[in-house]
Amino acid sequence: MLTRLFSWSIALASIAAAPAVMAEDGYDLWLRYPKAEGTALSTLSSHATSIAIAAQGDTAKVARDELIRGLGKMTGVNPTVAGTPQAGSIWLATPATDPALASQPVKLDGLGDEGYLIRTVTVNGNPVTLIAANREIGLLYGAFHYLRLAQGGGSLDRIDIRSTPKIKLRLLNHWDNLDRTVERGYAGQSIWDWWRLPEWKGPRYTDYARANASLGINGTVLNNVNAKPESLTAPYIAKAAALADVFRPYGIKVYLSARWSTPVELGELKTADPLDPQVAAWWKAKADEIYKAIPDFGGFLVKANSEGQPGPQDYKRNHAEGANMLAAALKPHGGIVMWRAFVYAHDNPDDRAKQAYADFKPLDGQFADNVLVQVKNGAIDFQPREPFHPLFGAMPKTPLMMEFQITKEYLGQSTNLTYLGTLFQETLESDTYAKGKGSTVAKVIDGSLDGHKLTGIAGVANIGVDRDWSGSIFNQADWYAFGRLAWDPELGAEGIAREWAALTFSPDRRIVDPVVRMMMGSREAAVNYMTPLGLAHIMSVYGHYGPGPWVDTLDRPEWNPVYYHRADAQGIGFDRTATGSNAIAQYAPEIARRLAKVSTTPENELLWWHHVGWDQKLSSGETLWDSLVHHYDQGVAYVQGMRQQWAALRPYVDADRFKQTETFLMMQEQDARLWRNACIAYFQSISKRPLPAGAAAPEHPLEWYKALKWPYNPGQP
Amino acid sequence: MLTRLFSWSIALASIAAAPAVMAEDGYDLWLRYPKAEGTALSTLSSHATSIAIAAQGDTAKVARDELIRGLGKMTGVNPTVAGTPQAGSIWLATPATDPALASQPVKLDGLGDEGYLIRTVTVNGNPVTLIAANREIGLLYGAFHYLRLAQGGGSLDRIDIRSTPKIKLRLLNHWDNLDRTVERGYAGQSIWDWWRLPEWKGPRYTDYARANASLGINGTVLNNVNAKPESLTAPYIAKAAALADVFRPYGIKVYLSARWSTPVELGELKTADPLDPQVAAWWKAKADEIYKAIPDFGGFLVKANSEGQPGPQDYKRNHAEGANMLAAALKPHGGIVMWRAFVYAHDNPDDRAKQAYADFKPLDGQFADNVLVQVKNGAIDFQPREPFHPLFGAMPKTPLMMEFQITKEYLGQSTNLTYLGTLFQETLESDTYAKGKGSTVAKVIDGSLDGHKLTGIAGVANIGVDRDWSGSIFNQADWYAFGRLAWDPELGAEGIAREWAALTFSPDRRIVDPVVRMMMGSREAAVNYMTPLGLAHIMSVYGHYGPGPWVDTLDRPEWNPVYYHRADAQGIGFDRTATGSNAIAQYAPEIARRLAKVSTTPENELLWWHHVGWDQKLSSGETLWDSLVHHYDQGVAYVQGMRQQWAALRPYVDADRFKQTETFLMMQEQDARLWRNACIAYFQSISKRPLPAGAAAPEHPLEWYKALKWPYNPGQP
Repeated sequence: MLTRLFSWSIALASIAAAPAVMAEDGYDLWLRYPKAEGTALSTLSSHATSIAIAAQGDTAKVARDELIRGLGKMTGVNPTVAGTPQAGSIWLATPATDPALASQPVKLDGLGDEGYLIRTVTVNGNPVTLIAANREIGLLYGAFHYLRLAQGGGSLDRIDIRSTPKIKLRLLNHWDNLDRTVERGYAGQSIWDWWRLPEWKGPRYTDYARANASLGINGTVLNNVNAKPESLTAPYIAKAAALADVFRPYGIKVYLSARWSTPVELGELKTADPLDPQVAAWWKAKADEIYKAIPDFGGFLVKANSEGQPGPQDYKRNHAEGANMLAAALKPHGGIVMWRAFVYAHDNPDDRAKQAYADFKPLDGQFADNVLVQVKNGAIDFQPREPFHPLFGAMPKTPLMMEFQITKEYLGQSTNLTYLGTLFQETLESDTYAKGKGSTVAKVIDGSLDGHKLTGIAGVANIGVDRDWSGSIFNQADWYAFGRLAWDPELGAEGIAREWAALTFSPDRRIVDPVVRMMMGSREAAVNYMTPLGLAHIMSVYGHYGPGPWVDTLDRPEWNPVYYHRADAQGIGFDRTATGSNAIAQYAPEIARRLAKVSTTPENELLWWHHVGWDQKLSSGETLWDSLVHHYDQGVAYVQGMRQQWAALRPYVDADRFKQTETFLMMQEQDARLWRNACIAYFQSISKRPLPAGAAAPEHPLEWYKALKWPYNPGQP
Repeated sequence: MLTRLFSWSIALASIAAAPAVMAEDGYDLWLRYPKAEGTALSTLSSHATSIAIAAQGDTAKVARDELIRGLGKMTGVNPTVAGTPQAGSIWLATPATDPALASQPVKLDGLGDEGYLIRTVTVNGNPVTLIAANREIGLLYGAFHYLRLAQGGGSLDRIDIRSTPKIKLRLLNHWDNLDRTVERGYAGQSIWDWWRLPEWKGPRYTDYARANASLGINGTVLNNVNAKPESLTAPYIAKAAALADVFRPYGIKVYLSARWSTPVELGELKTADPLDPQVAAWWKAKADEIYKAIPDFGGFLVKANSEGQPGPQDYKRNHAEGANMLAAALKPHGGIVMWRAFVYAHDNPDDRAKQAYADFKPLDGQFADNVLVQVKNGAIDFQPREPFHPLFGAMPKTPLMMEFQITKEYLGQSTNLTYLGTLFQETLESDTYAKGKGSTVAKVIDGSLDGHKLTGIAGVANIGVDRDWSGSIFNQADWYAFGRLAWDPELGAEGIAREWAALTFSPDRRIVDPVVRMMMGSREAAVNYMTPLGLAHIMSVYGHYGPGPWVDTLDRPEWNPVYYHRADAQGIGFDRTATGSNAIAQYAPEIARRLAKVSTTPENELLWWHHVGWDQKLSSGETLWDSLVHHYDQGVAYVQGMRQQWAALRPYVDADRFKQTETFLMMQEQDARLWRNACIAYFQSISKRPLPAGAAAPEHPLEWYKALKWPYNPGQP
C-alpha cells in the first residue's frame, strides 16, 4: 500500500560533478544572483552589458540598481549605465520617457499600471533586451522577471514575455505586535523595529521591499489584526510613514490594522457607534492625519466582533455599517477597507463553519465600493486541509479578498517542510459553481466572475528577524508561492516550486527535480500525519504545535478538538449534511449534491462533511479505521523519504543550509511519529478497533501523549 | 566655559587617500579579518604561511581553524596545515604534545591553565611564530591575540608576549527569558532559540563562542536572574547541554540562574528551607541530573530575596545558609555558586545604598569555599556614575565577584554612544583602602588583596539577535572592553578603545584617533546630560529610557527618582554623611573622612553624598545650580561634537555602519537635549533660580516633559 502511493527515485549524485558551494545563510532568499560560469556566464555578459534607462523616478532607479546588483553579482562585472540602448543593453522604457518606444513593434495596451513586457528587439541594428511598461513600477517588475530568467542559465535571445497581474491588491498581512512579538510567527520577532523608527531605517527594510517587489507584492499591513489603539496614534503613524518611505519606490503601499474601539480607548470619544456622527468625524480626521503623513496610505484591515475584538455589533450595528463608516473616511484619499469575515460567536451554537456565511451573505451588495470582505481560504481556520470557504461564490456583489496563511500555524510552524503552494492552488482552482462550471475561486477573487475591478489577496506573513526571514529555507518557498499566485492565481504549484528551487539552490536538474518532488508531496504528508481524510483542528493547546485530539477543556466548545472530530464508539467526523449542521447547503447545488453522500464525497474531505462508521468501507476497499491508520503511516513514511532524498543532495547544497534542512527533517520525522502515535492511541481508545496488519502500536500509552507540553511556543499570543 | 572643557580637532580627511570600503553589517564584530594590502599583506603572507599543530583536541582544531579563517581572509590564501613548523609557520604547541618545545628558550611556568606566550623563535634556522600554552585553551587565546596583532598591520618579527588572565571566572550573564524576551535587552530578542534547541544549533552559537573566546570570556549564564523553574527541568537542561556542546571547544562553560523556589514550583517539595534535608537532597539530585547532561557545568547564579524573588529568608535562613546548601550540591562536581548581593527590602526604611552591605558584611567568612558573592559595581543599580560598592574591601574572607552591566539600561540603551570602558576602569581602579592605599577594587576581585584563588567577574550581556549583536556598532565596544578587562582588570580603557577601533574599523590613525576621542568622553557626556555631579536614578518609568526626575508615584519609595535627588527649596542631593544616612561609614576611614565634607568630596560624586544648597559655591567658583545647568549643556555639546567628528569620517567607513552611527548620534542629540531640558525644567521649578547667562530655557513647559511616554520599551520586563 505504501509503496503504491509514492515512489522515491533518489537521484544518484555524480560526485565528480558536484560544484563547490559558497557558504549561505538564507538571507538572500531567491535573489542570490550566484556567480555564473561557462556558457551561462558568456550569455549573461553579452546580453547585459549596460542598462539604458531614461526614466528618472525613484522606482526607475531601483529597477536599474537591482539589475546592476544582480547582473554584477552573476557576471562579476557591473553593467554600465547608458543613455541610449546599445548592443547587449537592457533597455527599460516607458512611453512617457522613451519616444523611441513608439518605433518598436511592441504594444503596451493591456499592460495596465503594473504590467510589463520583455522582448528582444533591435535598436540601430543591435540586439537589445527591452523591458517596457506604462509606468515605472512595471519596469521594476519586469527587471525582476528578467533577473529570474538570467539566473536560470538558459538562452536570453528572443525573449517575448508579457505579464500583467490579475489581482489588484497583493498584500502581506503581518500579525506583528508593537512589542515585536509576532502572533503565530515562528521566524523570530517582528522585523519592525518600532522603538528605533522612525529615525532608524535599517537595511532589512529595503531588502524586505526588494523581496516583495520581486514577487509583485504591492502592499503590506504592518500590524496584527488583533490591533492596539496605539498603532493609530501620531508616533506610530510616523513610524509607519518611515516604512512607507522605504517601500514606496518598490511599489509597496503601507496599510494598518485598525482596532474598532480606538477612539474610545484613546479617551477621545465615549462611543464607537459607526452611525454616530462624532465617530464618523473622528475617523475622518484620523484618516486625514494619516494621509498627511502617508499620502499613498493603502487603508485599513479590520477584525471586528471576532474572538473578542470590539466592533460595530457592540452597538447593534452590522458589519456593513461598520465597514462603510470607515470606508467613507478613507474614500476621499483613495483608501480602502478590508473587512474580515472571520467571525464566529461564542454564544452561537450553530456549526462554526457556517457562521461567517450566515453573517455576511445577507450583507452582499451593502458594502461601499471601496470595501473588500476578506475571507480565509476555508470556513474554520487555516487547517492543513479545508474545503473552500462557502462565501466564495456567494457574494457576487461584493469584492471578496482571499486570506491565506503563509506562516504555518497548523502545519508544523518553522521546522516542518510542508510546501503550501499545493494548498493555495487547491483552493484557487476549487470550483464554486456559482455561475456554472468553471466558477473557480480564482475567478471570484480576480474579479472576472462577477465583474469587480477592486480585487485583492492577502497572505499572513511568515516573516521575522530570523536570518532566513521565514524560519527555514523551505518556508521561504511559501512566501514565494503566495506572491507568484497573487500575481497570477492560475499558475501551478509545481511550476512555482521549480522556479523557486532553481533560484534558491541551483537550476541544475539534479537538484531541482528531487527538491520539487520533496515539496510537491509535503503538504499532503502533513495532512496525512496530522489530520487525514478531512479531519481538522486536532492540535494541542500549547501553541497549536503538537497533537491534541483529546482536548475538550477549552472555554469555547468550538475551540476544542473533540468538537471537530466527534469521535465516538460508532465512528468519527462532523456531519455537515442535512442530517447534521447542513453546512453543505451553503454551497452551490452541484456541490451540495456531491457532498450529501459519503460515496460521492472526495475522500480527502470525508470527515469534514460526514460522521462515518469505523467499519465503513471506502472506495479503496479498506475500512475507515484502517485507512485512517494507513494515512498516518503514509505521512510518516513520506517524511522518511524526504530525509533520504535530502541526504543525497549533500554535495550540492552549501553546508549551513543543508544542515538546517537535514536537522529540521529529522525533527519533522519525530513530529510526524508523535502525531501518528498520539492520534492512533486516542482514536483507538474510542474506536476499540485493532490496528491493521503491519501498523505498529504507538510507542507510549495515551496518558503519556496527553501529558506532553510545549511551553513558550514562539507564536503563542 | 564650554570650549574650555573639551576641544574638537576634527581630523581633516585626505579624500584622495580614502580607501574603498566593502559593505559591512556589524555581524563580524571585531573579527572582521579585512583583506590586507601593501606591506601589511606581504608581512602577513611571509609570517603565516602554515599552521603547525600537533595537539589534536577540539580546542586545538578550533584554534587552527580560526587562524586559517583569519589569515585566509586577510591574505586571500588559506595557510596550509603542516606537521612540523617551517619557515613562516605559526607553531601552536603544548608541552604534552610538542617535545620540541623543551628545546626552545621559553618558559611556560606561571602561564597556568589559560595563559599563553607568543614568541618569534627559530626552528631549524627558520623564523617561526610560536604560540605556546600549557593547555589547548591557551593556544586558542594565543591564536586570537596573534590575529589581533595581525590585523594591526604592523611588524610581526620579534614578537614576545606573555599573557595570563588575572581573574578565574570571566562570565557573561544573559538576562534572557524563556520566551526569548531579554530583560534590559536592546539588541533584539534572545539569541537562545529555545524552541528549536536542542536539535537545531544554528551558526550564531558558534560565532558567539568565537567572539567570546577572542576576549577570553570563559563562561556564560544562559538565563535571567529573574529565573523560571522550567530552566532546571529536563527539557531545558537538554537545551543548555546542546549549547554547552557548541561552547566547550571554545573554553566557555555554561551556567544557569537558579530560582530558589524551583522544587516547590515544580510540585516536587512543599518547602524550600535550605536546612531541610529533603531540600538539600533535591538540589543534590538536581545537580547530579545536570552534570549527567553537562559534565563541565559551571554552576548556579542566584538572585534571592531581592525584588520579590524567593529565597532562604522566606524560611528565616540567611544568605550564607542558602548559598551553602546549593554549594554543597555542586561541590562534588566542581561547580560553584554565585550568590548576588543585590538586595534591598521594601520594608527597610534605611538608605537603599546601605542595605546590601548591612545584609552581607556580617556573613563574611560564612560562605562555603565554592561560593562567590556577586556584587554590582555600585550600591544602587548601574547608574551612569556610582561610587564603588562598599562591599568591595569589606568582606576579605569571601571571594567577591564584580557584576558590571554591559547592556545600557540607564545609559541610553541601544542608540546612545556611551563607551563603558571608562566606567569599568573607574570602578576597578577605585581604591577601597581596605588594606591601606592601593587596595583597589581590581585587587579585591582578582583575589590578590585577600588571597583568593576563586575569583570572578560578570557582565550583564548586551547581546541579542540584532545583526550587529549589541544593538549598535559602538555598543560592541562595551562587550569588548568588558572581556579585555575581565582578562586584565588593570588595562586602560583608552588602550582598549584603540584596539577595538582598529579592529572594528581600521588601524589607520586617521580613523582610530578620532573614534577613540569620541569614545573616551562619551560616558561622561551621558553623565552630564542625565545625572551630573553625582545625581542618580532620575529616569522615567517607561523602560528607564527618558528623564523622570519628578517621578514619585511608584510602589516602593526607593524606586522613585525623588528619593534619590531629594531636591527641595534649599538644594539637592542625598545626605549620606553622619547627618544623613551615614552610608559613608560603610567605607574605609580614609574614604569616609574625605566624603564627610563637601569641600573634599570629588565633585562628580557630590550629590551622591551630600545635600547641597543651590547657591553653594563649588571649587570652580560657580554655584551648584549654575554648575548643574552647565553640566547638562556640556553633555549636549559633547554629543554635537561627536556628530561633527563622525560626519568627517564618512569617506572611511562603510555606508551601512556609517549611517547607523550617524542616525543614532542624531537621536542621541535629541535625547541629550530632552534630558537636559526636562531636568532643568523640573529642577528649576524647585530651585527657582534663574538660568546662568547663556543657558537656553527649556523648549517646552515642565508639563510637556511630564506627559512624555515611551511605550513598548524593548527591555522592559
